[in-house]
Order: sequence, then structure tokens, then C-alpha cells
Amino acid sequence: MEFGAIYHRASDNYCYPLNEEELIINLKTGYDIERVYLYYGDPYSSGIMGGAEKWNGIREEIYYKKRLKHHIWWTTTLRPRYKRCKYYFELHTKTECVYYFEDGFYTKEEIEKQEKSPSYFTFPWMNPIDINKTPDWVNETIWYQIFPERYCNGNPAINPKGVKQWKYEKTGVYDYYGGDISGIDSKLDYLHNLGITGIYFTPLFEADSNHKYNTKDYYKVDSHFGTNEELKQLVKHAHQKGIRVMFDGVFNHTGTDFFAWRDVMEKGEKSRYYNWYMLNQWPVDEETSTEDGRYYTFAFASHMPKLNTNCEEVIEYILNVVKYWIQQFDIDGLRLDVANEVSHYFLKRLRKMVKKEKPDFYLLGEIWGDSISWLRGDEFDSVMNYPLASGISDYWIYKNWKKEEFEHAINRCFTMYMQQTNDVLFNLLDSHDTNRLMDKVKEKDIFYQQLAVLYTMPGSPCIYYGTEIAMEGAHDPDCRRCMPWEEIEKGTYDEEIEQIKTLIKLRKSHAALRSRNFHFPNTIDDDRVVEYIKLDGQQSVKVIMNCGEHAVLIKEEGKVVYNRNLVGNQLKKNGIVIIELKEKV
Amino acid sequence: MEFGAIYHRASDNYCYPLNEEELIINLKTGYDIERVYLYYGDPYSSGIMGGAEKWNGIREEIYYKKRLKHHIWWTTTLRPRYKRCKYYFELHTKTECVYYFEDGFYTKEEIEKQEKSPSYFTFPWMNPIDINKTPDWVNETIWYQIFPERYCNGNPAINPKGVKQWKYEKTGVYDYYGGDISGIDSKLDYLHNLGITGIYFTPLFEADSNHKYNTKDYYKVDSHFGTNEELKQLVKHAHQKGIRVMFDGVFNHTGTDFFAWRDVMEKGEKSRYYNWYMLNQWPVDEETSTEDGRYYTFAFASHMPKLNTNCEEVIEYILNVVKYWIQQFDIDGLRLDVANEVSHYFLKRLRKMVKKEKPDFYLLGEIWGDSISWLRGDEFDSVMNYPLASGISDYWIYKNWKKEEFEHAINRCFTMYMQQTNDVLFNLLDSHDTNRLMDKVKEKDIFYQQLAVLYTMPGSPCIYYGTEIAMEGAHDPDCRRCMPWEEIEKGTYDEEIEQIKTLIKLRKSHAALRSRNFHFPNTIDDDRVVEYIKLDGQQSVKVIMNCGEHAVLIKEEGKVVYNRNLVGNQLKKNGIVIIELKEKV
Repeated sequence: MEFGAIYHRASDNYCYPLNEEELIINLKTGYDIERVYLYYGDPYSSGIMGGAEKWNGIREEIYYKKRLKHHIWWTTTLRPRYKRCKYYFELHTKTECVYYFEDGFYTKEEIEKQEKSPSYFTFPWMNPIDINKTPDWVNETIWYQIFPERYCNGNPAINPKGVKQWKYEKTGVYDYYGGDISGIDSKLDYLHNLGITGIYFTPLFEADSNHKYNTKDYYKVDSHFGTNEELKQLVKHAHQKGIRVMFDGVFNHTGTDFFAWRDVMEKGEKSRYYNWYMLNQWPVDEETSTEDGRYYTFAFASHMPKLNTNCEEVIEYILNVVKYWIQQFDIDGLRLDVANEVSHYFLKRLRKMVKKEKPDFYLLGEIWGDSISWLRGDEFDSVMNYPLASGISDYWIYKNWKKEEFEHAINRCFTMYMQQTNDVLFNLLDSHDTNRLMDKVKEKDIFYQQLAVLYTMPGSPCIYYGTEIAMEGAHDPDCRRCMPWEEIEKGTYDEEIEQIKTLIKLRKSHAALRSRNFHFPNTIDDDRVVEYIKLDGQQSVKVIMNCGEHAVLIKEEGKVVYNRNLVGNQLKKNGIVIIELKEKV
Repeated sequence: MEFGAIYHRASDNYCYPLNEEELIINLKTGYDIERVYLYYGDPYSSGIMGGAEKWNGIREEIYYKKRLKHHIWWTTTLRPRYKRCKYYFELHTKTECVYYFEDGFYTKEEIEKQEKSPSYFTFPWMNPIDINKTPDWVNETIWYQIFPERYCNGNPAINPKGVKQWKYEKTGVYDYYGGDISGIDSKLDYLHNLGITGIYFTPLFEADSNHKYNTKDYYKVDSHFGTNEELKQLVKHAHQKGIRVMFDGVFNHTGTDFFAWRDVMEKGEKSRYYNWYMLNQWPVDEETSTEDGRYYTFAFASHMPKLNTNCEEVIEYILNVVKYWIQQFDIDGLRLDVANEVSHYFLKRLRKMVKKEKPDFYLLGEIWGDSISWLRGDEFDSVMNYPLASGISDYWIYKNWKKEEFEHAINRCFTMYMQQTNDVLFNLLDSHDTNRLMDKVKEKDIFYQQLAVLYTMPGSPCIYYGTEIAMEGAHDPDCRRCMPWEEIEKGTYDEEIEQIKTLIKLRKSHAALRSRNFHFPNTIDDDRVVEYIKLDGQQSVKVIMNCGEHAVLIKEEGKVVYNRNLVGNQLKKNGIVIIELKEKV
């Protein structure tokens, strides 16, 4: 038996309450394990301390599993009558059977002999207040990310100085084009018509840059974007169209023109804001002291000094800012920039505050990798799911990869966290921080294959503005081009827009596509053809993608609801088909 | 390569700051891995987002490892200059080399080709406020657990009705013997003389039982034990002798005579305390409703209704009780009973409060198994280390076990948590909830072997009252016998007491014995001879135990500081020897 590959801990994504009734238990084993049974029951069902008397659990086979590259992921859901659960596993290879307890492996003989009592796994109590609860609406939401400076110029009167002419072109780091709030407001119908139900705005507050990630004033909308009142109206109008709004909170660092930093620069160690930053040695030189460690900044960006979220005053300040945004603008969510560098302590406080203000508020963290330490239910609801983005794209990059690699990549993303997190994971294929999807995939057919995957995954899908017209653009700053409204209005992109609308409609009309339940049936014998079935209580929907060189025959019975490159029964190269199956599977 | 056995996650005990400067990184692999290198460096050392440009870390071999049964545990400590760290591993078997990243394994060729950039492991920022800090004094402390009803009767005037005559005998569940605070106070010199520097008291507050785990009044010392004033004096006297004091907090449930429960029983759903408990269906019958789920209790003990630590008022109530205990009695620590069933939310609040009242307060949880979910730095400092107790005793139970099993058991206990937790883990071999050590081991020589292990482990050792006289006693209630003071004063147990005093002195005089650093050199070729070396900066101390049937030859050069059954150079059956080595190893 591959003992080393077996892993369970009664914690995090391995054992947790999904809600007040259900307890999810997951187990990782090697591929040699063919069957798994769970013994479970009440910890106190025999003897108060579970002491001398033998404890007997109910024995149940675990049927559900997901394949990872080097592991099988076994999963089951229990409903502990008294909110507490004690359990262990029975594992079978072809020839062996062992029992897996918290303190290791036992043979049947060892258990029966009872020389010592094993340590059981335990989930001691499902306290409601500790349960990871994420907002319901997020799984239903179709997100659209807007980089305001490049979306639409509605009011040239407030253009920044030296603004360039609005044009769909490669942009420079320091360029301005004059995008603003009134421009965005004028495009709400367009967005509504696309099917968008949530907008994530990169920062809107005053800052001396086109991206606004170096805040000067958290309380004042950037004057080149408009006024606080305009932003308030924008959110109101969005809400009227059923579109929720998420702001970007940049609290890891400020701009160097933020009042507190200016005070420190002027008064040095005597400044009452000295502890607001991470200053290690005085004096500091705003140009050079970041590499020599005299003060800490975001990355080595000397103009972005790090706020000290270990400091009570800073925490209070930020909480007030966010409370103001919620109360004044009625926002529905907040994305935190550089979310993994601020203190957990601050994030726990932030969550308590926002959930008190608005119980179904959505807290999203910009964390690029494994984020389990932030997703235990008392910090973020979700993170930007970049692992899914690369998990999807890798399969096209590595032409020699078999479909099992794709299966692994998807399963990895949705076994890392709790299911309530999976429901609201912020799925994206690109953003203002990456090259654009079209730049990654080059080909339109692959572009729509990947978008179809995005819209059929569990979680909450987001496209970056311009994706609906297959906008091009390499890494920052090129990924921040102006929206070509004239061309759009001329109908140049009608075909592309129609594709996105179809995918969005599909996701909205099929709960199965939004569901967290899926599996890979692998019925087509071709390494480069991916198939997965999404299902909920009512419906099964199958997605088939041909990523190989040759056409494949599609035999499924059901209603084709989306397809590219399906000719008759032949799914051609780079084709994709989504089928509503006749029978629930 | 055993890919399935390789495990790392930048979280919990696998990657964490030990303090503001040091970051510990641990990795688990199978036994096929012979060498491991770590690549590490600043996440932003090339390119702001670590994007297109290749990131280069420093490459360093990881030398330290611990053997577990199915794994090798590799460990290293870094000092990230800018408080953030990005890293990955290079793993070597005899014939293969792979690179281990957050998103999987890469070959050298794949990395060099750079078709895609791997996901690095990251510890994004070592925020001081998030660092798990445990109190320094606990590692230095020699604990002694007292069950007050059975320790010493100092004031017969406050005896409970129907008290039995003080006698070292098998006790019944409902017996009273009249132990009290003034009795304990009179024995402080005795404890000081033993070398004790910390007392853990099982509950002292008013309750209608001999164990007091069903509290009636959290503000009033049980009248059969004495007065609040007497308890205050007891703590003061203990402090004067350099003995710290830890109370037992029973907040998972109350007694049925607690005012709030009485109010609920009288007024039912109209009681303003209805939400203080976990009542599911009204009316409830105090005798039978626990099994039918009408209200939740500790285990199925109907006289111990569970307090609802999801309820703000209950949390406030308990916080006030504990604050009162700290302020009135000046206690140094608190052990929480049934600590894993109360809400995490409550525990986080509790920690904040007690650490504000007394920054070096010790918070200990009664949790019997893997407690990582409570030991992340914002709930408990430590838990009762029952896994160590069974880890130690198993080796004697299974006479066919090889010493590697012992090594695994010890290493398992000290790789589960962070090192700052290990420093203060509450190590014990028995308690009021188990049979006594003498009952487990039967033989005196094994008794002292196990105690010698206890006093040479990392963490904070505790003996249960009576262990110094090798007290007998099976499971509860038999493990709660009266201390035979007359016999002790006659000198009947002088030899036993001397043994404990020697071991305590040894631990106090040798920092290496308290240290978290140890390894198993395995130089003696005998499956039943255990050897381990404890070391700190100054000193190496070797412990050798013969658990086999035959004598073994001891060749170590150094000063023998403790031994049983060492005759000349021969360590006999059930013998143990502790040697201060000449050279630091």
C-alpha cells in the first residue's frame, strides 16, 4: 500500500461543516486504493470519554471521488445528529485492507485485539458561528472587470492634462485617455444587454496614476473620473439594472501623496503617523530606501509605501473607509489588492465589520496561489482564481498533455478549499495584471473553448472588459487598451459579442453549469478530447472539447446548446460542444 | 519517485514565522528522497509581478530531517530580508531529480524551457501581529495537577455531609473526602520542595459534585473547598514560592443548578437565557431529552447542558468570569475543559481578552487529538498532549515494536504544530481522565523510564498528584484517590519522591532537556533500545532506554546524570540512563 500518499486531517478543506446540518469529509489516497469505507458516529455513543468500551461507528462506502495527478480524492457528506462526529477510514487495495486513524494505520487484527485504543478523527462540534458562510448571490453573478481610465470617456471636461486621443492601440505606462464614471454610466445598458450582473472596478479613488493603485485620498473619487455623487449614481443605476458593484480596496500601501505619508516625510520620527507605515530606520530616501530596507513598500515600488496593518490606528482608519464606501455608495463587494500581505488580524476585523454592515457582502482577496490560510471562513469569501486560469490554459500550451492533466488541473482547483468557497471563487482567464486571453491563446477557436470552460465552472466567472470583442493586448500596460466604441457601434464585433452573450445566457439558464458538482466521464478514447459533466438536482449538461488535431465523433443524445466547429456529428479541431443530456447522470 | 508522499502547503505547521525574523519551512516526502534543496528569495527580486522574467532564488541544501513512519520530515529556517519569501524545492532520489512547486512537479527541462511559469510557494508577509507567540515561562515550568477534593483536608469544619474517612483507597463516583484549599495551602512547601513551579487545579468553583465539572456558580469558590479569600491567598502563597497557578475553566456546559439553566427550566421559551443553551425543541425533560436531541449536553450527561458559545451574551458572560479570575486571583493560566466543542469565535475573543489582561497568560485547551485548528496563534497556546502520552506508552505495550516506532511517535507529536507551540505543549502521562501511569505500566522500572522521557521532552511536563509516590488507580473514579499524607510523612515513599526530585532537578539544570531540538542517533544495534539526544546551544544530553529483555553495553563518554538499572557499563532490562555528553553533537 502507498501509505505515504494517504492524507487526512480533521481541518480546513479535509473536514468541515458545509452548513449547520452537513459535514463534509475528504480523504486523499494513492491510486492503489480501490475502495474506501468510512466508519462514523457520535463520539459519545459508548462511554463518556469513549474509553474502555469499544466504540462502534456506522460503516458506509465512499463512492464519490475525483482524480488528481498522484492522488484520488474521496469525498462524502454526513449529517451528524448531535453536531459532532468521530470517524476513521477502511482502505482497500486489491489485496490489502487497513484502517486509517488519526494516529496511523491499524490492521483488523490490531483493532480486534484492542491492546490500545486508536485515536479517532473527530470533528468535535459544528458551531454555527464558525461555519464558513459565503454570499449566495455570487454564484449567480456574471462579472465584468472595468479599468475605468480605458473604458469610456463620457466627460472630456474632466480629462487629465495631456490626454491622448481615444484609440484602440498599444498603451504606455504613463498614458491617459480620459475614461470616466459618466462614460461607464452610459454603457450600463450595453453591459446589461451582454448579460452582466456584476462589475468589478479597479480603483476609483484619487491617485496620481492611470491605474489608481497608489491612493492619495480614500474618501474622494479621482477628479478625472468624476465626483463622489456621480459614483453614487453609477452604483444606483447599476443596481437598477440588476448589476452588483465591487470596488477595489488598496490598503496594502498608499501613494506617497497620501496625507499620512506626507506627514511622516515632513516630521520624521515625530510624526504621529510614523507607525502607520513600516519604517525600519530613519531617515529614509523616498527614491532609494526600499531596496536597502529602510522602509517597506509594495514590491520595490518606492512610491507605494506599505501601510502597517499591525497598527490599531491604521486598522480603524481602513475600517472607516470601507464603512464609508458601503454606506455612501452601497457597494456589494470589495476586492482587496495585495491581499496576502496585509495582516490576518486586520482581515478578520474587516470581515466582521463588513458583514455587520451588509450580511451578504462579498469579500474577495487578490491572492494568486493556494489561499487556504485566508479562506477558513473568518477572512475572505473568495480569492481571484488564477490557479484555474493557468490550470485551463496549460492544457493548450502543452500539446503533449493528456486529458488527465486537464482533469487534474480542474480538480486541484476545486479540492483546495471548502465547497462554500468553490461556489463563489472568482474565476477569471485574464485581468489588468496579465496579458489578455487572446494574447495567450492566439486563435479565436481556442479563445472560445476557454471561455466556454470559464462559464461552465463552479464559482463566479469574470471577464475583463474587451473580452466580449476578443480584445488583444500583451502584459501590462498593453492589456489596458481603450474600448473601441465606434467600431462596436458599427457592428464590427457583433459576432464576438454574440458568442459571449450565448455563453452568459447558457450559464444563467442552466443551474447545472453553475453547480459545484461535476465529473469527467472519459468515454471518448482520445487524449486530447476533454469531457466533463456538470450536474445539479435537475439536470446534467455535458461539455466536450476537442483539443487535438483530428475530428471526433459525438454520440451523446441530448440538446446541443452551444457549439463551435461541430459539423454534423463531427467535432472538429478546436471545437467545443455543450449538450443538455436527456438523462441525469 | 513517490510523488504521492510529497506534501507541502505554505500554511500551518508547514510554513510559518517562528518570530519576527525567522521563517520555518517544512516538507514531507517519502523515504526515496535522499536530498532536498530549497530555492528561496524575495518574490519581487525580478519583475514587479514576478512575471515574464525568470526569478532566481538562492539554492541551499536542507540538512535537518526527522523520520516518521512513512515519511521524512525536512526542516529549515530562513531569515527573509524583506519579511516575504518565495520558494520551491529540488528533490533527489538516487536516480531522479524533480522540482516541486505549488502547482506540481517540473523537470529541469520544463523549467528551462519556460513554456509556462510555475506557481511558486509563497509566504507573503511576516506580519508581527499574526505571529504565534506563546509565553516563555511555560517551557521552564514543572507542573503538578491537583484534584482538590482528594489532595488534603485542611479544614474539617467545611467537610461536605457524609464525608468518608481520608484513606488511600479505591473511590466511588459520588464519594466525598473533604479535600480543601487550606489543605493544599499547607502542602505548598512540600510541592516547592519537590521542585514544582506550576499547579494546575481541576475546578474549584461551586458545583454539586466531587469533581466540580458541573458549575453552579463561576464567581464563588465551592464552600466545601473554602472561600474566595482563601483561594486568593493560596495563589499568593504559591506565587511567593515561585509556583504559577492555572485554573480549569468549564465553559462548554454548566451544572443544572446554574442560574441561567434554572431560569430556562422555569420560564421555558420565555426565559431571557433561552439562547444561552442549545435548546432545539421545547419542552425538554432534564432526564431524557439529551438523547432525543431536544437539548444538547456534554456527551449524553443530562445534568451538563451545553452553553451556547455562539451567543454574544454567553461570550460576554464567560469573558467577565475569566477577567474576574485573573483580576481577583491573579492566575497565570487557564485550562479549558472540552475545549474543542466551544466555538472558535469565542476562543479568539477569549485569547484577545486574557492577553490584554496579562500578556504572558497561558491558554491551554483540553483537546485529545490533532489540534492544529486551535493552535494557529489566535486561540490556544497549547493543548493537553495526550498523543505524546500514548506515543510514549505504545512502545511498551507492543513488545514487538522496533525503536523506529518510538522515534515516529515522538516525531509525530513534535511535527504536528509550530515550534512555538511545541515549546509549551502540556505533556502528561496521565490525569484525572485516564487510569494512572502505574496502572498502565504495572512495573516501577517502566514507570520511571516513562517519567524520564516526560522530563526530557520539549514542552512543559505535568505530573498528576500522587505520581511522586507512584500512586495506583484504574480509570475514573479510581484515579482520584486520597493522598496518603501520613504514610508520606512516615517516609514510606521517600525513595519514589527522591526519583521525581532527581528528574525535576535534571530538567531544571539542563536547558538541553527542555529544548525543542533533538534527534535519534540509533547507534546501538538493538530494536528495543531507544536513544535520543537533546541539545541546545551549549550542551548535548543523551537518553538511552533499554526496553528489551537483554542488557546492552553503554559506550558513551560523558557524565551520567540519571540512571536506573545501569550496572557498570551494562544497561539492564527496563533500565534508563541520561548522560551529559562531553562533546556537543
